[in-house]
Amino acid sequence: MDRRFEIVKAGHIELLVTNLDEAKRFYVDTLGFVLTESDKSHLYLRGLEDRQHHCLTLTQSGTPGVGHFAFRVASEAGLKSIEKLAKSKGVYVRWLEPGEERGQGRALLVEDQFGFPVEFYSKMAGEEWMLQRYQHHRGAKVMRLDHFNIMLPNAASAFDWYVKSLGFGCTEITETEGPKPALWAAWLRRKHTCHDIALTTGKGPRVHHAGFTVSDRASIMDAADILASTGYLQSMERGPGRHGVSNAFFLYLRDPDGNRIELYTGDYITADPDWVPIRWKLNDPQRQTFWGAPTPATWFNDAMLVKSPKTGKFAGLSAPKIRDRPDYLLSAR
Amino acid sequence: MDRRFEIVKAGHIELLVTNLDEAKRFYVDTLGFVLTESDKSHLYLRGLEDRQHHCLTLTQSGTPGVGHFAFRVASEAGLKSIEKLAKSKGVYVRWLEPGEERGQGRALLVEDQFGFPVEFYSKMAGEEWMLQRYQHHRGAKVMRLDHFNIMLPNAASAFDWYVKSLGFGCTEITETEGPKPALWAAWLRRKHTCHDIALTTGKGPRVHHAGFTVSDRASIMDAADILASTGYLQSMERGPGRHGVSNAFFLYLRDPDGNRIELYTGDYITADPDWVPIRWKLNDPQRQTFWGAPTPATWFNDAMLVKSPKTGKFAGLSAPKIRDRPDYLLSAR
Amino acid sequence: MDRRFEIVKAGHIELLVTNLDEAKRFYVDTLGFVLTESDKSHLYLRGLEDRQHHCLTLTQSGTPGVGHFAFRVASEAGLKSIEKLAKSKGVYVRWLEPGEERGQGRALLVEDQFGFPVEFYSKMAGEEWMLQRYQHHRGAKVMRLDHFNIMLPNAASAFDWYVKSLGFGCTEITETEGPKPALWAAWLRRKHTCHDIALTTGKGPRVHHAGFTVSDRASIMDAADILASTGYLQSMERGPGRHGVSNAFFLYLRDPDGNRIELYTGDYITADPDWVPIRWKLNDPQRQTFWGAPTPATWFNDAMLVKSPKTGKFAGLSAPKIRDRPDYLLSAR
Amino acid sequence: MDRRFEIVKAGHIELLVTNLDEAKRFYVDTLGFVLTESDKSHLYLRGLEDRQHHCLTLTQSGTPGVGHFAFRVASEAGLKSIEKLAKSKGVYVRWLEPGEERGQGRALLVEDQFGFPVEFYSKMAGEEWMLQRYQHHRGAKVMRLDHFNIMLPNAASAFDWYVKSLGFGCTEITETEGPKPALWAAWLRRKHTCHDIALTTGKGPRVHHAGFTVSDRASIMDAADILASTGYLQSMERGPGRHGVSNAFFLYLRDPDGNRIELYTGDYITADPDWVPIRWKLNDPQRQTFWGAPTPATWFNDAMLVKSPKTGKFAGLSAPKIRDRPDYLLSAR
Repeated sequence: MDRRFEIVKAGHIELLVTNLDEAKRFYVDTLGFVLTESDKSHLYLRGLEDRQHHCLTLTQSGTPGVGHFAFRVASEAGLKSIEKLAKSKGVYVRWLEPGEERGQGRALLVEDQFGFPVEFYSKMAGEEWMLQRYQHHRGAKVMRLDHFNIMLPNAASAFDWYVKSLGFGCTEITETEGPKPALWAAWLRRKHTCHDIALTTGKGPRVHHAGFTVSDRASIMDAADILASTGYLQSMERGPGRHGVSNAFFLYLRDPDGNRIELYTGDYITADPDWVPIRWKLNDPQRQTFWGAPTPATWFNDAMLVKSPKTGKFAGLSAPKIRDRPDYLLSAR
Repeated sequence: MDRRFEIVKAGHIELLVTNLDEAKRFYVDTLGFVLTESDKSHLYLRGLEDRQHHCLTLTQSGTPGVGHFAFRVASEAGLKSIEKLAKSKGVYVRWLEPGEERGQGRALLVEDQFGFPVEFYSKMAGEEWMLQRYQHHRGAKVMRLDHFNIMLPNAASAFDWYVKSLGFGCTEITETEGPKPALWAAWLRRKHTCHDIALTTGKGPRVHHAGFTVSDRASIMDAADILASTGYLQSMERGPGRHGVSNAFFLYLRDPDGNRIELYTGDYITADPDWVPIRWKLNDPQRQTFWGAPTPATWFNDAMLVKSPKTGKFAGLSAPKIRDRPDYLLSAR
Repeated sequence: MDRRFEIVKAGHIELLVTNLDEAKRFYVDTLGFVLTESDKSHLYLRGLEDRQHHCLTLTQSGTPGVGHFAFRVASEAGLKSIEKLAKSKGVYVRWLEPGEERGQGRALLVEDQFGFPVEFYSKMAGEEWMLQRYQHHRGAKVMRLDHFNIMLPNAASAFDWYVKSLGFGCTEITETEGPKPALWAAWLRRKHTCHDIALTTGKGPRVHHAGFTVSDRASIMDAADILASTGYLQSMERGPGRHGVSNAFFLYLRDPDGNRIELYTGDYITADPDWVPIRWKLNDPQRQTFWGAPTPATWFNDAMLVKSPKTGKFAGLSAPKIRDRPDYLLSAR
Repeated sequence: MDRRFEIVKAGHIELLVTNLDEAKRFYVDTLGFVLTESDKSHLYLRGLEDRQHHCLTLTQSGTPGVGHFAFRVASEAGLKSIEKLAKSKGVYVRWLEPGEERGQGRALLVEDQFGFPVEFYSKMAGEEWMLQRYQHHRGAKVMRLDHFNIMLPNAASAFDWYVKSLGFGCTEITETEGPKPALWAAWLRRKHTCHDIALTTGKGPRVHHAGFTVSDRASIMDAADILASTGYLQSMERGPGRHGVSNAFFLYLRDPDGNRIELYTGDYITADPDWVPIRWKLNDPQRQTFWGAPTPATWFNDAMLVKSPKTGKFAGLSAPKIRDRPDYLLSAR
């Protein structure tokens, strides 16, 4: 695994919401994210296990979507190496000054060659650990950010970028059927879990969801009960269930603006240097849901638009050249 | 609550299966029922909490379905009172001699006025309690039989029979919408749980499912993982999820013959004499699944045929005069 | 089972506390009991599953202890039968007028022949069911009262009273070792669970604890984490663990005044009319804790004094003639 | 974090047992380790999540203890760097040829300066992943090896070796009280969990225990029930409970020879480069057990002897200069 860039993990994501009060009711009051601080147009949230300023920023916006997502890097030197690499690709990069994003040190904002707004940062302000303050664990008892799942027309090219250039390890892949299988999706990691980022074939650039870790299956079931009791019945898009890929137990939620997050628990540790990627076929009914429950069409149709760091507008979309879902769901398009 | 008939609980059910070996693999090897004994054409199974011979009999048959279901009665006197009551209704009754059903004392087999084969028994042979022999708990860790759910055209008339004549208590009901709501379903109990029998509107007489209690939500999740690993993907028809009615956590399964059982946990205690039935409207999306997940059409279409004690043939079916499912599922008929 | 007296279940208990604010912080804010109402000297609490006014009353008092414990009876006629039976034993009885205990109908208060203040009541005001309002489930998520455990010098005589006179069923017993085993403890029930009342040998009359049902093992573990985070480390007297007797998973707590309650889950259903009591020997190391963990000496030494309905003073204590604990704990007395 | 030596994780441990059949009954039949292969004097076991040959070797021996423990290293180059470093310390090193330890590539065996037999290896044969073959999950459902906990007189010197020389990160420490606090214990990690190795003050060199990860608290509770049902009551030395340090949920077991392992779940992810060690005081009652339950004296008295790679005999023991347990347990020595 290439270590030049010293990326350590998926760090945080900025979701755009149209009503901060509604978003607070969903993320803080109901799901139990910890509110680190807020200003007129932002809420900075962390999980119970986080010792840092935020893993989720909610930003007041006229339109929902994703402002940016960010990887944590071990050192300033790593940031500079990434800047150099990005510039060699001719993409837009911009440095953010310390504090330009609340709680964060100097950071590099990139519009990558696939159109995604990706931030790299090394320093972030420390915050109190809530892990053993159990009286404050509520709702889904969200522990931390786990991963981003992004959707783009050409997963294979992004695979090369993340694995060969940025030094991510590949834990699982999905291929199309047939004699010449194409890479359809990949789960890539820097930290020792199943993934920090997943690449999925579909109209893009879009962010499909951000996954947040909870402690156990009971936390997910409890979250479903609480959401069902508080008027968020429509927020539960898919699950609870067990994934084939990643083996994790999951529940997909749509926030009041339709932004999608995943409650996620129970994947595996991936420290081994000789990890051979687990391979799935796109049409395997146990790939997405190990128990075989069908995935709703919205799961393939909907994803979050991303804001261009260069223009400040949402990125335009391109369609993939290969199909964007299993055969048995093509009719539900 | 009328105590003349001394019915104490849902006691056991006889399911007809076309292949005893296949049925054993499903119920014993996979779900973890305890095999008390077997002969050439029967398997007698009990749960981990049962101290008696069987709560589930599997009988070799050319066609799947239900042979009979049975209520346990506190005494022989109770059986005689029930015989008298049944005869006053002019229905077919027959006494089974001790041992005629393996492990069971003298019993009364009735073809009730709705066409169901219902047995009443008082004595059953004792068996070892497996509850604290944890090394033998496997699969879904099935504890005991909880209830029967039967489907018939006129739930209201069966309601009168069970509540007014047989002395069942009513814990929850479902009514149709509109100014003149009709009783659509009822959950009735003798033991101190949500129900021993549920009555549902639909083409009948059929048995919709038999519900078996497991210890907790984890047992149901574990069962789903095991079923998904052993080729029973298609057996998982609905769930896991939380019911609105009964508040129980559930998973509906179809055995290799299509017979339906429910894994069930987490309802409530109903000893109070002044229990006011919980009322639900048929179209309430949280009634069947508290988390709002849609129920598959098969759940409304399919149920188990019942064998007539009188003729030995399967009972013919009649359709209800009111609709047999919520409005939002009518199109899936 | 004798039904003349129509006792249906353990109904509620009145604990005497020296500081209502402290008691509220423990029972309501930390453990999650629902506060139905309060006045200057009482808090009336119920569980999440209760549909009635209270299962736990906390009463301001100069000294901790038990004001009374109460069984629910199916009808007024049942109350009168109990009055007659009690009077035939020459014990003190007194009728409470409707509302004399908040939320309760006419009730019979008895100082039984063993010195315990036992109330029998039939009517109680209805309250909102919180079972499916999951957003309000907190702390230990207490569902309902399950049982009383009382301590007295002569368990055998109380056994006769509860079983032969009041019609309780016996589910489990503990006997002393040796050629002439003496009854040391008994678990007795009216509702279909392991027990409504347990009788234990020891200095008495005292109430050892009141047991409250929670949904699952996770609720008990979560409660331990929360108690440990909020300054109640000393409140956790024993557990979490698995009982041999009752098979339940438990945690024993001492409230800020030293009153003892149990969080309890996972016993079994006892509707069968031919239940044969499970028998344990006093010295069996798995009897109290199935996993073998030793019970602290305080568990045998401490219990709650009870208030005499006749004198309003705490009842004096007598010692048992047989030993009050297993041999292996005699040295810890 | 120093990456020259490319240590990736705690890899496996060799426990010496006096009866392989008894050991198999404990580890495989009861706890659910997967048997990869065996020969006359060894069992090679792995966890359900492992994709490699073994994480636990049981070796027939006249005396219980630890043969060696091993860290996995990312590459052969890493092994050579470690050889060079070890030789610079003047300690005994020996190369094992591929296959000399079954399933393993070329490996470096070191008797470190503290007397511990530590192996470093890079290659190991791949094996089938049992993670999604749920029908084979049994007992404690052991997932993988998590960490070693070693006991030695001078934890501070080993801290320098592991952190400054070998490049481990420090996640938590325990210090003695007083104006000049001494390092009493440290939790050190290479993979992104709380620890791969813990250093504890005590008579040594000894291995206190090896920790194995299970999926959730329920797996630990289930294991306790199973152990209690199969004659292993005495095997449960401490727990189940919650640790203060690591926040993990635990159960300590002694195998039939007295070797100690831990079932462990629920610590946290430690990918962040700026992790500030959590600090505990030795006398804090919540440090070892967050719920305050006292630790038995055996936990401080007993640990596993280690075999010298140089002499093949068990290493002699030295006592620490500072006390080896909290003040409140000194009397139990």
